[in-house]
Amino acid sequence: MTTIHELGTPSALIDTQRMERNIRRMQDRMRALGVRFRPHAKTTKCLPVVQAQIAAGAQGITVSTLKEAEQFFEAGIQDILYAVGIVPGKLVQALALRQRGCHLTIITDSVAAAREIGRFGVAHGAVFDVWIEIDTDGHRSGIKPEEDALLQVAEVLQDAGMVVGGVLTHAGSSYDHDDPQALRAISEQERAGAVRAAQRLREAGFACPVVSIGSTPTALAAEHLEGVTEVRAGVYVFFDLVMRNVGVCSMDDIALSVLTTVIGHQEEKGWAIVDAGWMAMSRDRGTQKQRQDFGFGQACSEDGAVLEGYTLSGANQEHGILSRAGGPDGRIAERFPIGARLRILPNHACATGAQHPEYHAIAADGRAEAWPRFYGW
Amino acid sequence: MTTIHELGTPSALIDTQRMERNIRRMQDRMRALGVRFRPHAKTTKCLPVVQAQIAAGAQGITVSTLKEAEQFFEAGIQDILYAVGIVPGKLVQALALRQRGCHLTIITDSVAAAREIGRFGVAHGAVFDVWIEIDTDGHRSGIKPEEDALLQVAEVLQDAGMVVGGVLTHAGSSYDHDDPQALRAISEQERAGAVRAAQRLREAGFACPVVSIGSTPTALAAEHLEGVTEVRAGVYVFFDLVMRNVGVCSMDDIALSVLTTVIGHQEEKGWAIVDAGWMAMSRDRGTQKQRQDFGFGQACSEDGAVLEGYTLSGANQEHGILSRAGGPDGRIAERFPIGARLRILPNHACATGAQHPEYHAIAADGRAEAWPRFYGW
Repeated sequence: MTTIHELGTPSALIDTQRMERNIRRMQDRMRALGVRFRPHAKTTKCLPVVQAQIAAGAQGITVSTLKEAEQFFEAGIQDILYAVGIVPGKLVQALALRQRGCHLTIITDSVAAAREIGRFGVAHGAVFDVWIEIDTDGHRSGIKPEEDALLQVAEVLQDAGMVVGGVLTHAGSSYDHDDPQALRAISEQERAGAVRAAQRLREAGFACPVVSIGSTPTALAAEHLEGVTEVRAGVYVFFDLVMRNVGVCSMDDIALSVLTTVIGHQEEKGWAIVDAGWMAMSRDRGTQKQRQDFGFGQACSEDGAVLEGYTLSGANQEHGILSRAGGPDGRIAERFPIGARLRILPNHACATGAQHPEYHAIAADGRAEAWPRFYGW
Repeated sequence: MTTIHELGTPSALIDTQRMERNIRRMQDRMRALGVRFRPHAKTTKCLPVVQAQIAAGAQGITVSTLKEAEQFFEAGIQDILYAVGIVPGKLVQALALRQRGCHLTIITDSVAAAREIGRFGVAHGAVFDVWIEIDTDGHRSGIKPEEDALLQVAEVLQDAGMVVGGVLTHAGSSYDHDDPQALRAISEQERAGAVRAAQRLREAGFACPVVSIGSTPTALAAEHLEGVTEVRAGVYVFFDLVMRNVGVCSMDDIALSVLTTVIGHQEEKGWAIVDAGWMAMSRDRGTQKQRQDFGFGQACSEDGAVLEGYTLSGANQEHGILSRAGGPDGRIAERFPIGARLRILPNHACATGAQHPEYHAIAADGRAEAWPRFYGW
């Protein structure tokens, strides 16, 4: 049996109690709002986490790469939404998954791509289930709910014999806010835009059974989800400092941290040097423009107690600089001697997880279990 | 035979001609300056790259993790410097490497750590070769050349029977400059500080045979290296946009890029969406505070021609936003249609490489060969 105290550093830790609580919170909320929940597996790329999400009631998963689809399908998950606009070059891989029995849904937001999907489908005798991506906040991809292109894409797909299975949107701009009222407004804008797009498709004769929305902040801020059939969210399973600043979780909900060891000091500067640099934390500085900047992460004791004011103020590849906000700590070397172990809460759980080949799931009694994650494309 | 045109996207590409030219440039320079060269393998973590560096004349390597040491030692490289201050908890792993025949050098910058090394060495009958880390620019770790601690550390090590093999420094602050004169000054400060520390040790009776300095900018800016015995540098092998802004390479020297495909557009904004987001580029925004900000990377055609003014202005996990600096391109969809393939030059080669399980080494004739890299600790 391995315990947290025997792990090498740096290591990525999952507080499984917090993770389970986060999963329950989201699933209970979705149940109360009357919608299905389809977690985004891109945050963790880790089977035991996704299995916990499904055990709690999730129906199907969302992925950001076809590699994720392949890995999770091989592990027995059948209902998979690949939520990045498909390009012609990836249709061979998508078809192979469908031919193996995976219920893979693909998405598009352009007539050009829809034509390619149709052409490829016809050429290979394949019927793809395609959802149309809707843009409700100008954040990234998608067709606006009132644009002509919406119906054109649906027609191109239908004419080629593809299934227009639904619409989906992602209000990524919700990450830029920290006011509950603003979050409720973006959530309502996301809901209303997706529902309106579905309504236009239905008026034009398309069944459009699915209306899929989501992001962690909007999922947690929504007052009602009338007309929506499913919600997607990813980072809620671990939460992170960005989400804490957005206001949808507290520091005590953050389930991911990086275990690190103090390797040196620059006492006159009030620095402790730790072995978690940006390779372990990622280069994500997502809190830089938020109401509280945590540098490269918030320091906690090895058992997880937040060390108020101590953050990773700098990071090189394998060196982190731990210092006190608001003035150097003249007793830093005494407080954190060489060999002392700390946990660092990350800015962005998706980015930090991606730096590690495995998580170490820490149970309530301190037992550590290795949970592998995969990466690449 | 695979060619670049058959590779899936996103993929990390190495232009091997540029890489070979970068390797020769550095090695020739070190030869002219009369010093040994010990490349830092943390940039690539890739055996074929390191083998090319050694074939060109490098003597030994530098690593940033003991995993790198283990991997390269297993591949036949014996002279390895672990250039991150050792903590007691990692001495078991370091000893195991030495017992297998690896000439592993470790470093320290404190009396506390030196005591632990000595205690551990005595307890296990091991003689570690230890170099003392010197701080010449206040950038990170190290003892200042004139500090009392320098001699104290050496004495503690010697008293325990360890070998005080040398001093080393890393002028990381050189990355913050872009003026040749300033770079020469930092380079001279790095050289002089390391030589002075060695002089103090020698005056106190320590042989201190090695004086090791280095960073890519200072290695390329140094006018002379009197008293220095070896130089370390990592990123020079690929270079990147940060180094281009520092002024030590041109855009045409950058050997690493990410191959990507256009997956959609937001025409009214002048955006093309590509399948290289921050997962493929890393979250490194190193050019943000430099003289030219390249966003998440500089776009090039698939064959590598720089597309002046087109950068990745934004990035989500698997989506990059390609746009034109200085005003939206109204013909973006025509210029970069869905399915078009581009290369993106990265801000920071160490960070971008770390996102990929393998590089694809592209030869002059377009042939692609997979070169695996490893990650984790």
